Amino acid sequence: MPKYVYGFTEGNKDLKDLLGGKGANLAEMTNLGLPVPPGFTITTEACRHFLTEGGVPQGLWDEVGEHLRAMEDRMGKRLGAADDPLLVSVRSGAKFSMPGMMETVLNIGLNDESVHGLSEQAGNERFAWDSYRRLIQMFGRTVLGIEGDRFEDAIEDAKRHNGVTSDLELTASDFHHLVQTFKGIVKDETGGEFPADPRVQLHMAVEAVFGSWNAPRAVVYRRQERIPTDLGTAVNIVAMVFGNLGMDSGTGVAFTRDPGTGNRGVYGDYLQNAQGEDVVAGIRNTIPLQQLEKIDAGSYHALLGIMRTLENHYRDLCDIEFTIERGKLWMLQTRVGKRTAEAAFRIAIQLVDQGLIDMDEAVARVTGDQLAHLMFPRFAGHDDLRPIAKGMNASPGAAVGKAVFCSERAEELAAQGEDVILVRRETTPDDLAGMIAARGVLTSRGGKTSHAAVVARGMGKTCVCGAEQLDVDTRERRFTAPGGVVVEEGDVISIDGSTGEVYRGEVPVMASPVVRYFEGTGDLSDDLISAVHRVMVHADGRRRLAVRANADTPEDAERARRFGAEGIGLCRTEHMFLGERRRLVEDLILAVSGEERKAALDALEPLQKSDFVGIFAAMDGLPVTVRLIDPPLHEFLPDITALSVKVALDGDGASGRDRRLLAAVRRLHEENPMLGLRGVRLGLVIPGLFAMQVRAIAQAAAERRAAGGDPRAEIMIPLVGAVQELEHVRDEALRILAEAQVEAAIGTMIEVPRAALTAGQIAEAAHFFSFGTNDLTQMTWGFSRDDVEGAFFSRYLDLGIFGVSPFESIDREGVGRLMTIAVKEGRATRPDLKIGICGEHGGDPESVRFCHEIGLDYVSCSPFRVPVARLEAARGAAARGECDSR
Amino acid sequence: MPKYVYGFTEGNKDLKDLLGGKGANLAEMTNLGLPVPPGFTITTEACRHFLTEGGVPQGLWDEVGEHLRAMEDRMGKRLGAADDPLLVSVRSGAKFSMPGMMETVLNIGLNDESVHGLSEQAGNERFAWDSYRRLIQMFGRTVLGIEGDRFEDAIEDAKRHNGVTSDLELTASDFHHLVQTFKGIVKDETGGEFPADPRVQLHMAVEAVFGSWNAPRAVVYRRQERIPTDLGTAVNIVAMVFGNLGMDSGTGVAFTRDPGTGNRGVYGDYLQNAQGEDVVAGIRNTIPLQQLEKIDAGSYHALLGIMRTLENHYRDLCDIEFTIERGKLWMLQTRVGKRTAEAAFRIAIQLVDQGLIDMDEAVARVTGDQLAHLMFPRFAGHDDLRPIAKGMNASPGAAVGKAVFCSERAEELAAQGEDVILVRRETTPDDLAGMIAARGVLTSRGGKTSHAAVVARGMGKTCVCGAEQLDVDTRERRFTAPGGVVVEEGDVISIDGSTGEVYRGEVPVMASPVVRYFEGTGDLSDDLISAVHRVMVHADGRRRLAVRANADTPEDAERARRFGAEGIGLCRTEHMFLGERRRLVEDLILAVSGEERKAALDALEPLQKSDFVGIFAAMDGLPVTVRLIDPPLHEFLPDITALSVKVALDGDGASGRDRRLLAAVRRLHEENPMLGLRGVRLGLVIPGLFAMQVRAIAQAAAERRAAGGDPRAEIMIPLVGAVQELEHVRDEALRILAEAQVEAAIGTMIEVPRAALTAGQIAEAAHFFSFGTNDLTQMTWGFSRDDVEGAFFSRYLDLGIFGVSPFESIDREGVGRLMTIAVKEGRATRPDLKIGICGEHGGDPESVRFCHEIGLDYVSCSPFRVPVARLEAARGAAARGECDSR
Repeated sequence: MPKYVYGFTEGNKDLKDLLGGKGANLAEMTNLGLPVPPGFTITTEACRHFLTEGGVPQGLWDEVGEHLRAMEDRMGKRLGAADDPLLVSVRSGAKFSMPGMMETVLNIGLNDESVHGLSEQAGNERFAWDSYRRLIQMFGRTVLGIEGDRFEDAIEDAKRHNGVTSDLELTASDFHHLVQTFKGIVKDETGGEFPADPRVQLHMAVEAVFGSWNAPRAVVYRRQERIPTDLGTAVNIVAMVFGNLGMDSGTGVAFTRDPGTGNRGVYGDYLQNAQGEDVVAGIRNTIPLQQLEKIDAGSYHALLGIMRTLENHYRDLCDIEFTIERGKLWMLQTRVGKRTAEAAFRIAIQLVDQGLIDMDEAVARVTGDQLAHLMFPRFAGHDDLRPIAKGMNASPGAAVGKAVFCSERAEELAAQGEDVILVRRETTPDDLAGMIAARGVLTSRGGKTSHAAVVARGMGKTCVCGAEQLDVDTRERRFTAPGGVVVEEGDVISIDGSTGEVYRGEVPVMASPVVRYFEGTGDLSDDLISAVHRVMVHADGRRRLAVRANADTPEDAERARRFGAEGIGLCRTEHMFLGERRRLVEDLILAVSGEERKAALDALEPLQKSDFVGIFAAMDGLPVTVRLIDPPLHEFLPDITALSVKVALDGDGASGRDRRLLAAVRRLHEENPMLGLRGVRLGLVIPGLFAMQVRAIAQAAAERRAAGGDPRAEIMIPLVGAVQELEHVRDEALRILAEAQVEAAIGTMIEVPRAALTAGQIAEAAHFFSFGTNDLTQMTWGFSRDDVEGAFFSRYLDLGIFGVSPFESIDREGVGRLMTIAVKEGRATRPDLKIGICGEHGGDPESVRFCHEIGLDYVSCSPFRVPVARLEAARGAAARGECDSR
Repeated sequence: MPKYVYGFTEGNKDLKDLLGGKGANLAEMTNLGLPVPPGFTITTEACRHFLTEGGVPQGLWDEVGEHLRAMEDRMGKRLGAADDPLLVSVRSGAKFSMPGMMETVLNIGLNDESVHGLSEQAGNERFAWDSYRRLIQMFGRTVLGIEGDRFEDAIEDAKRHNGVTSDLELTASDFHHLVQTFKGIVKDETGGEFPADPRVQLHMAVEAVFGSWNAPRAVVYRRQERIPTDLGTAVNIVAMVFGNLGMDSGTGVAFTRDPGTGNRGVYGDYLQNAQGEDVVAGIRNTIPLQQLEKIDAGSYHALLGIMRTLENHYRDLCDIEFTIERGKLWMLQTRVGKRTAEAAFRIAIQLVDQGLIDMDEAVARVTGDQLAHLMFPRFAGHDDLRPIAKGMNASPGAAVGKAVFCSERAEELAAQGEDVILVRRETTPDDLAGMIAARGVLTSRGGKTSHAAVVARGMGKTCVCGAEQLDVDTRERRFTAPGGVVVEEGDVISIDGSTGEVYRGEVPVMASPVVRYFEGTGDLSDDLISAVHRVMVHADGRRRLAVRANADTPEDAERARRFGAEGIGLCRTEHMFLGERRRLVEDLILAVSGEERKAALDALEPLQKSDFVGIFAAMDGLPVTVRLIDPPLHEFLPDITALSVKVALDGDGASGRDRRLLAAVRRLHEENPMLGLRGVRLGLVIPGLFAMQVRAIAQAAAERRAAGGDPRAEIMIPLVGAVQELEHVRDEALRILAEAQVEAAIGTMIEVPRAALTAGQIAEAAHFFSFGTNDLTQMTWGFSRDDVEGAFFSRYLDLGIFGVSPFESIDREGVGRLMTIAVKEGRATRPDLKIGICGEHGGDPESVRFCHEIGLDYVSCSPFRVPVARLEAARGAAARGECDSR
């Protein structure tokens, strides 16, 4: 029979799988000799048994009994004894933190007799009856499943009856009465009595905690956080200590250094004469931890010593919970603490300088998300400004602009070069155009998975959502904030997507100092910049994945190179067909004869060539992957509905070109352009189009070479699904390259599922693969990003179907599986096949890790994301214990 | 060193891989003791060596020399000897027949000397010089790559010079001159002399045949026919025999029974004093083979005896080529002959009755395509009618209707209940709506892979294309046929998609007698019907795959049952929302409040229930898989462009409902509805929609059960990509079923690639899978059938990227691979998982075979295709030597 119960002296911090995070760390502290109340942990294995078999394992209660007896012996008290009762808490504690998701019962062991013993021992009758009613209330709600409101209502009744407004004003006698009332509620709701037997209380509480693993909110939380459903929770049974026994008692939380900045010092809050749940309830204000020194210098200095011990032991920032019971300090919990992005970098480097960790570990301690966070623009010098409202920090960044209240107006003003913030109660797919046009989005309703939040994050656009204090009146085009502040359309507002704060007027925005560092103008004497610099230098030495950028212009290419890009992984050529060249594309589409088509292509070719010359120059000596034109041609034409309405309204007065355009738009109209005539299909159907592009690339390369440059063109064919498509285009391209005496690798996007499934064949005709994970995600799931992200993603996130949008982070099981197949089978055909990724996932930290794991050669992402990818590539290599001295 | 050359006595019919079809069958006939001219075959292996190494294998010419000497010894002649030359032919012969794709050279061995020997031996100077010029002409074109027109032009010149119009009128002297002219052309084009050395002629011809394997037309043909590219061709070297030595000589082709009907008797054509190529050239009319008895009774009866031998030996209809040289019969080729669909059935059963094959073999000898062919309607009694034109038989069936010349008019008349035939020069995607509205399509341009042909076949619509004799004038709305026949818009025409014939006026159409048989009213005394019946009875006993039908109405369900369906594999519920119910769906979409939505659903529920009651009754005792609503809701709303134009033109007069509808259409508008809010997504986003459908199913089942019926409902969730989606819907459905005390299996479509890739997880929540291969094909390839089939499929077929549209036959490498993954991993999770297919591929013969191979439990197809699927399921089982005594 397995061992189901571990005393705190038997466990350690590495047993999280078995003991949960809380239990493992309590054991670790116990073994460090820190003052932890006696206790023991029932394993996750017992929970899993309970969940699959419908009851606790045989012998569990015997084992619990033995540990309880040992605890009683050590404390010199018996559980629920009438004269001097031992009380215990029963707390859940899973491997992964699931804050607020699961259950706790305090004060187990109280009943009509032992309440008197507690009262006498504590010398505090009110405390004893308050503790008793807390037990019945928590037990009733958690174990017996009674609506919490029934107890809350009874407390409200008691306060009303006594003419008081606060729990603190209730007396011992009031709580005595409440205990009777609460027992009545239990009888009423369950038909049975509240169990007086302390052992029965304990066993029922343990089973309730086990069962809470499968409570709906816990199930949804795990789905969202991608925590496996079958882990189960451990249960910690700990002797109660009380911070609410008088002014020489109290409770607090602390961090071993500042989690906001990473600076050293004493950080925490303390509340005298209180229990943990009072802190949460916010009934009284806490005091800064430093003030504890004046109240209880002994406990204060003991606590500081313990914090130093913990930090050295865990070699990281720790957060802790503690209680002082009549001058005696008790540690109730510790764990490695959460921290801000800048604190993460500072702490990692400080720990290196203290000799506690090495640089590999420092790189592992910071994340790409944190680095990205440091790169967003932020508000400068608004310490003296007060926000007019605060919502949720849905999508980071800082945005300033004129408030507008509808999508049309947003587009209109943006077209005039104005910065606007789109303000809505909530957004719908109809607001998409306005969201694109705006610098930021502000809503008064909806949470972090609302339409506005999901879409804005997808766009990388600043968003504050759910600012419920705002009353948004879209009809009158204004909103009002607390204090009668009214903002009319056109008034300037500023929103901080990292804090959720909303300001009236223009708050100065400053570029991130970290971006200035990457731009080459950062201040290395600043300790944050220095920390980032040291991390990045080490990361670049460690990573195996190369990092390229997606860039379509010489300017973008130059910026990307400054940010550390080692080439261009995706140079989109379709953007080169916009602006004043749009008319030439219209000519191409309107062409009836071969001559007309050729004339249109001939006009485009020199323009294309000059585009490429600039990009090759900016990336001289580094590979530049040029993708031939990909989107459906009708994207270059007017919208069919708008043009139809125009021609209909113009009637006989409609212009000839409008009519011809409308005919062309109708001819090219597709029900599902994403699944239509685009990519390689265009190249095979429109004679000369791809040839023109390849010729422009070849001539640009030849020109750069003649000028002494070192152009390294790679030609990439989009949307290939069958090797035969690629062979046709490749053969033509090779002829053109040979004529121009230019060499270039020819490869393909892997972006339709069939390309991945037949990668072994496709590799016969490709020098390289590049995963287009946007399209691959669309087709693997069968949904188009434009259409569904707003329509049902927020619902899907709420239902726990996604933990995160598959457009943000690669879906490993579906899309990732196809990628794995393609890498394996492509390399089986062509061992030196170069493989990269150029979808937006190339800049997502989780996805970069995945790309490392499956053995890609490079990732390519937007220039801004290049540093993030460099860091994550190194973390991926470090996590797998790989070393590469490139 | 491998053996590269096989004498005819060394091979046999089973060595097709090595000797090609022609060589293997010549060897087989030789070994049967039939009169085959001496010869030998160079293997495909030698060809493959030539193609990969760029030259013939070492020692090949020595081996050829040895076999040639043996042949010379046997014939008593030497190759190209001046006095009495042996002449040989060099013919390609691959494993798979590639008619007209590859090369032949006759009369090898002639030169300026041996032509005299031949003349003397044959006693015919004209014959000798004619033979010589044929050699130079064929050698020049085939081996030396000279344009054939240069030789043809010279012959035309000679005829003009002599004032004659036919080759037959040219004299020995004329041919002598032509030989000189031809040699001049060779010199002119190649800079060298025509090779006089017979061995050089032979070697060059062999290498040319090898090389012809990679001629562009052969490459494209193989791509289309899915013949592997690396097989190579064998080369047959055969002693020449001459049918053109006088009236006691001749050449012919014959079948061992009638390939049109399957009837026994003598079928063939004979041409006196001619060579095979003269028959092809059609210069003189052939005579029926029977007349040979009067001309040369000895040869005639010898031939009949040989035909009986061959049929008994091959146990099948054979087609043969023979030559009679001065009264001596020579067999030049045999192979198992092609036949019509009805002949295939008759012959198979006749051979069974003759004891030559068993019923398993008979089932293998007929195909689902042939059965389908027999089920198309056909013209009745038009033997006396003469077609006004003939085009290509692009898509079978018989269609009658008024000729119309544009898509709009087709829709207009069809809406009035008229049958129309859409006539165009060629169709474009703009004509799609008209093609849907029409009974058939007729074009004057384009081949079997033209837009019209591809789209019509996809729709199962009758189509004749490329009827080049027609002059179609769409502006004047008429076409003219040869002989001044003019057909104006509105005139009735009839087109036969099986023959390509076009008739003026109404030709009576009759239902297929085979369909009448399946309907239960067929005449079993008819030998064709009897043959079909016996094949189907045996097939049903042999197949392992069950066959269900896709049916949405009680009428369709009943028909399907008569056709042998063993249940419904796909009952689409979206069709139940059309017609007069459309307004209820609009109400659902326009619903603003929960109450409005509920009211709309409540109004739909009883209608849905009554739909299901009828279907369950029709399929009593058999499974009925009901798919919950799948397509995007906006499909039930007006077109956005049309409605926008209407509201814009109506201006202030636009109705309130139009305005509300337009707002809803805009709200629901998606750029790519195929990848939008549909299927399970609708169910998760619109509260109550799926619940209403499940309730209607449950209540219908309960009602049928109460009435003594045996309803077997299965509920199918569309478009699932993640198990979590299915779990949500399943949990709700199980609650509703439990309330109604109805049991039903709950399963899912596998139609997005991710569903296949995560089938192991999805099977945890599914009782069954059903492959939706239409969507799966769309998403695996990344193209939508509606958008691309016309836009680029014809180009793709021309380029050989597809052999056949992946919407017609399952793409094994891409879509099929996903299916294989899903079957394997779904069954690993749930061994009793039932798996079927309900896409249109379920009725495609090749695809049915594939479904058998990967272990599906059933296929589901349109009622009309059920017999085809039954037959192919049995053929699949028989081909794999499986036996199932179900």
